[in-house]
Order: sequence, then structure tokens, then C-alpha cells
Amino acid sequence: MAEPLPSPLSLPKSQYRQIADLLRARIETGHYEKDDPLPSEPELAAELGVSRVTINKAISLLRIEGLVRVRRGAGTYVRSTPRITRDARYRYAVVPGGTHASELEGRALGLTPRAECTEVGEVGAPPDVAAAFGIDQGDPVVVRRRRLYADEEPTRLADTYLPWDVADDTELLDSDVGSGAIYSDLADHGHGPVRFAEDITVRIASDEEARALDLEDGQAVIHIKHVAWDATDRAVEVALHVMPAHLWRLHYDWDVFGPDEEDDE
Amino acid sequence: MAEPLPSPLSLPKSQYRQIADLLRARIETGHYEKDDPLPSEPELAAELGVSRVTINKAISLLRIEGLVRVRRGAGTYVRSTPRITRDARYRYAVVPGGTHASELEGRALGLTPRAECTEVGEVGAPPDVAAAFGIDQGDPVVVRRRRLYADEEPTRLADTYLPWDVADDTELLDSDVGSGAIYSDLADHGHGPVRFAEDITVRIASDEEARALDLEDGQAVIHIKHVAWDATDRAVEVALHVMPAHLWRLHYDWDVFGPDEEDDE
Repeated sequence: MAEPLPSPLSLPKSQYRQIADLLRARIETGHYEKDDPLPSEPELAAELGVSRVTINKAISLLRIEGLVRVRRGAGTYVRSTPRITRDARYRYAVVPGGTHASELEGRALGLTPRAECTEVGEVGAPPDVAAAFGIDQGDPVVVRRRRLYADEEPTRLADTYLPWDVADDTELLDSDVGSGAIYSDLADHGHGPVRFAEDITVRIASDEEARALDLEDGQAVIHIKHVAWDATDRAVEVALHVMPAHLWRLHYDWDVFGPDEEDDE
Repeated sequence: MAEPLPSPLSLPKSQYRQIADLLRARIETGHYEKDDPLPSEPELAAELGVSRVTINKAISLLRIEGLVRVRRGAGTYVRSTPRITRDARYRYAVVPGGTHASELEGRALGLTPRAECTEVGEVGAPPDVAAAFGIDQGDPVVVRRRRLYADEEPTRLADTYLPWDVADDTELLDSDVGSGAIYSDLADHGHGPVRFAEDITVRIASDEEARALDLEDGQAVIHIKHVAWDATDRAVEVALHVMPAHLWRLHYDWDVFGPDEEDDE
């Protein structure tokens, strides 16, 4: 059972919330196993002595929470992929040898990663990318779009943008399915990143995102805008990530910088 | 209108999604103004030539997106609070003089902040807090729970935990409504934080959270577990933040550390 939030307010819970709590507890304790179907709505209504409408509302809540999913014509199944931790600083550390830290995220949980490249080529810069690169919206940039999986469940859409002249120096355009390790390539050509920034927002998945990430209507996605700067303070990469919110835990850590360093910023 | 996600998939959009896109565009362009009511569902159904069921589904989507909210008996209103940027590194920088950076977040947007202290005292350590402090779950710790507002809209629940002996040294227990600036207090007593870590997860608001943060059923919250360590590598503070996902943008930035520093970890 989820740990209750301590709160000064304690009005009675709506009935469907109570049923959702009960079903969630059954999933979390393994009473309903991963990848197994839940009992049907009429079965649950009879067992728990509530209306089918209440059961349906409770299951809708579990669907947007990402705990269960509906397979058309086959019922409601318990989702199996655990939350994956994404450690931002470690992930973008320059690791010698070429294995990219991002490939280890899912492996730590015993998941098998797969990357699918959906597009590599020139496109017009979208607003966020243009702003970071200091160019006009619609100016040509190079993009590589990928969809990433863990155990064949989509975990991330990742669109990586490079300025045209920077991309020209690297192998990005040559690789059909990139390894993700573009940073050593950038470093080899004098554009090694020395500073990163990430902006995180959460929103409801668009229609296209929901289809691409196998989400249900109303599920939330995490959007990360990742920008890398080289030693000349030039933005050399912007990556836009869209990730199912229920699948991830984001980790950041940093050392404190005092008033002096603050003034240097 | 929201920028469309470039995608290789482009199946036709469901009708209610199209209606939601239209209403969203009307809100974003100011056709429906902040704090104003939307036209009623029958009015929208007649104007747009679709069923009331479709209008209702579209508005439900805008509700969980946080764009509109229903006031019981008074219709559906456009929400007015803009997204607030939370800059993690800046926010926890040690600022001389005592003004806490967190108080500036909303002010940058012209919003008036207010903090409400709901509890200060001794409680049993919840699991996350016990793990960070290296004590047993349920062992006594000191907590200060606050609810924060911007222009009287709840923006955050913040529960700050300190080990008992650390709290004893500080003024945390004395202050009815804390200023938030406990770090200078900690520093004065030899526990100045030198390192921070944050873990971010997104989930659907619980019943209690939805009431405390004025959210609708199914809206997502961002949960941040913030830990501060002192120079002896002791965890001296854990803060658990719960924030309406539609109200925030989280910002992190860091300098790259190379393989050598990585090995030191």
C-alpha cells in the first residue's frame, strides 16, 4: 500500500478512490502478478460489493497512474516495467572507452535496452532549439530522432539536434542507429561539452506521444530539454526527451557553491 | 497552439482531442481570458457542432492538464497561475543576508508568495527519511510541514525533516512560520550543507494532496526528495516536496566532470 501523505485534512475518501487503493495494494503485494490480467469488471464488482461504475472509475485511475493497461479485446493487464533511475550527472559523464552511461540505466534492473532510429537528417529548428543555438526558428539544423525501449516497452523519445556545422564534423549523419555516444565524437572535433543544463516539465501526452510510447489517454509524460555547451560557451547540442512519467525517477546531485562562486555566474 | 511533436506516426486524431486542441488554442491566445469562465457545455456543443459528450471529454482533458478548473456550481474557469521556474542549484545556494532564494521564484513572475506552517514537532521517521538519516523507520525526527502559495493558489507542500539532535541546535522548533532559510542556521551550528541530491518522481495526486493543493481528480504532482549532507558526510536534512505538475518547470545545470573525478565517487 502506498505510504499515506500526512495531512491536516482528512475528509472521507470517495468510494472509487478506496477501491483503487485496494486494487493498487493487490498489485504491489503481488496478489495480481505482473503481466497478468485483472479479474473482469463484473467479477470485481461482485467480489467487492460495489457498482461496475465504481470499478470502472477505480481502474481508470490505475490506468493513468501507469499501473495497468488495457489490451483491446483482451482485458486489463498489470504493467511490469519498474521505475528506471536516470542519474543526470553520471549519465553525461565522459566515460572512456565509449560505453555510454545511458545504456546502463535499464540494465541495472535486468531490462534489455533497444534503440530505434526513426529519422536522421536536416530539419527546420523548432523554437527551443533555435533559441539555444542563437539562430532563427526554421533555420536548418541536423536532427536524430530515436525511440528507446526496455524489454520492448517504449521508455523514451529522444530527439537530438546539432548545429549544421557541428554535425558536419561528426559521424551523427552516418550512423543509422546511433549508439548515443556522440559526446566523444564532439570532443574529438573540439566541441566537447563542459556544461549542461536541463529543464523539466510534466504534461499530458499528446495523441502522437501516447501512440509512440504506448500510453493511455490522460497519462503524463516528463519532457526534458537538455542543452550542452562547449568550452567557448557555444551551445553544441539540444536534446528533447519525452518519457512516460510512471517509468522514471530522475536523480540530480551537486556540491554547494557559496556566495563567491555565485557572484561569478 | 502547442507546438506539435514531430513524429513519424500521424494517424487521425480523435474528435475530442481536436476539440481540446481548439479550446487550448483559445485559452493560449487569450480568446478565453484568465480567471474567466468558459462557455457552458451546451453552448460549446452548439457552436462547434459536436455532442455534449465530446465537449465534456475535451474539457476533462484540459482539467487534468491544469488549464481549467471546475468551481462547483459556478462552471469551468481558466486557470491563471503561470509555470514557475525552480532553479535547484541557485535555490539552495548560500545567500548572505538571509533572503532565501526560494522566496524569489514566484516574485520573478509578479506573484505574491505566502507560507503557511501546518505542523512543527516530533514525528516518527517515514521510510525515505529514516534511510537518509541512517536510523530506523519510526525513530523520532523533527518535522516542519508547510503549504506554500503564489497569489493564494497552493503551489507546494514542503515537509522538512531534521535529525533530533540537529534540530535541537537550530531555531526550527521555535519558529511558528519558518522563513525557509534554515541553511544559515545549520551552518551556524556546524552542519552547513556541502552537497545536495534530489530524486524526482511524478505520480497522480492522492486524495489528500488533491484537496491540499486544489487539484482535480487525476492531476499529476511532482514529488521531490531533497537531501542535504554536511562536511562530515552526514545527512542533516531531508525535504519532501509535492508540487502540482502543471505549475512548475525544474531547472538543473552542472559542469561536466571527467573520468578522474568519476573514479573518486
